[in-house]
Amino acid sequence: MLSIHTMTTKPWSLEQACAKYAKAGIQGITVWRQHLAPYGAAKGRELLKANGLTCTALCRGGFFPAIDQTGRDKAIEDNRVAIRDAHDLGAPMVVLVCGAIPGLPLSEARKMVEDGIRAVEPEARAAGVKLAIEPLHPMYAADRSCITTLGESRRLCERINSPAVGIALDVFHVWWDPELESEIAKCGKWTCGFHLCDWRAPLRDMLNDRSVMGDGCIPVRRLRELVRQAGFQGWDEVEIFSDELWAGDQDVLVTRIQKAYAQHCV
Amino acid sequence: MLSIHTMTTKPWSLEQACAKYAKAGIQGITVWRQHLAPYGAAKGRELLKANGLTCTALCRGGFFPAIDQTGRDKAIEDNRVAIRDAHDLGAPMVVLVCGAIPGLPLSEARKMVEDGIRAVEPEARAAGVKLAIEPLHPMYAADRSCITTLGESRRLCERINSPAVGIALDVFHVWWDPELESEIAKCGKWTCGFHLCDWRAPLRDMLNDRSVMGDGCIPVRRLRELVRQAGFQGWDEVEIFSDELWAGDQDVLVTRIQKAYAQHCV
Repeated sequence: MLSIHTMTTKPWSLEQACAKYAKAGIQGITVWRQHLAPYGAAKGRELLKANGLTCTALCRGGFFPAIDQTGRDKAIEDNRVAIRDAHDLGAPMVVLVCGAIPGLPLSEARKMVEDGIRAVEPEARAAGVKLAIEPLHPMYAADRSCITTLGESRRLCERINSPAVGIALDVFHVWWDPELESEIAKCGKWTCGFHLCDWRAPLRDMLNDRSVMGDGCIPVRRLRELVRQAGFQGWDEVEIFSDELWAGDQDVLVTRIQKAYAQHCV
Repeated sequence: MLSIHTMTTKPWSLEQACAKYAKAGIQGITVWRQHLAPYGAAKGRELLKANGLTCTALCRGGFFPAIDQTGRDKAIEDNRVAIRDAHDLGAPMVVLVCGAIPGLPLSEARKMVEDGIRAVEPEARAAGVKLAIEPLHPMYAADRSCITTLGESRRLCERINSPAVGIALDVFHVWWDPELESEIAKCGKWTCGFHLCDWRAPLRDMLNDRSVMGDGCIPVRRLRELVRQAGFQGWDEVEIFSDELWAGDQDVLVTRIQKAYAQHCV
């Protein structure tokens, strides 16, 4: 079933997004913290409920690496807040963009990520909220995520081995991986989130030039099939960052996403 | 020993590059085909010899995938030309940027790459020229190279298993890989080329914003040590694509590279 990330329709407030998604017949919503902030988790939960929407995730926690202990403690505290907000909002998971600091060796950053997840895992478990590790495309390894592949995410899950830790698989980040098919199978029991968009070539901006499914070169339907064959039964979350699409009519965008979902994904 | 790619000083002709590198005391040069084209391989060889330069590689062959057989045949023929030119120039290897076509499934592109390398391997072997598979950063998977990791390149080498096929390892393309250390070790016998530059964060352009070693976040010295521990004894080739640096004084750039090499690499 289709869910949309509020970041996909970035110009809309949470209130607008809830009303518009519901009116379009969409049943799921993944809430970004910047959209939740003006309302707070309790009011956010009411908004979703009033519009009959299921909360599919809260985005995003993570960003564990920092240059000093103060920074790392602050990151852990922020993840605790995210877990509480997810619980209060009714989100089943917090998606983790793990973090990286330019110049900090990746091996150290990776250790900080594992330490950070371990530090907040008890709270997540107690709150019934999953921590969904999202491997990010390697082009973000310097400054956004030292965790770049499904394989690395899976090994992290295996080491921590908690029912409160899983993987959010975004086709944009992993589609290039030569190990993709075998890793999707191996990640079966860990995959708890699935994000859809497409990769246009050439990409005009490393961050905000994602496209609607079918407008790029990712075999989205095939990847969705593989993820489901591996046991995933959750939502299909559409997460598109695009300066071009944000500048356009967001109602038109939602309709386009629904058509693309029907035509290219399911 | 330090070698510079003519593409690093793109504004210079091959003649200028030879004279300038030699005057700066640089002993190696990797020649790009666009710089060679106005002279041809025989005249190029004379230019290098007159300046006491060792040719470290010819860049670049590859780009095997194409949408039809005519395109694939043309690519193979172009690689044959590159092999002959490398032989005539005195280059020990042709670096392969393997290729990809937006929308063509990566699995098919990968098969075309393997078929293409196998098709020209006999000529390469006969000419005493290596085909150096260069895994490219995954951000180029849609349109430049379906071969994105050291592991994939190594398995390709193992399958073809020819003394005329090896790997060109560029720190820019592989530094993010969670398997990097173990793969460098496993690639020991295959690695025949080593390229240096750095990754600045944020990267302002996906293609032409590489930086001089030490100006980014890649642990270049550490990676060089690992590659040499794995058995590589060849040249350190500096390959920097940068609109910013190309717009500046190329003599100053060469001096900067020599200093950075001494300070951050060896």
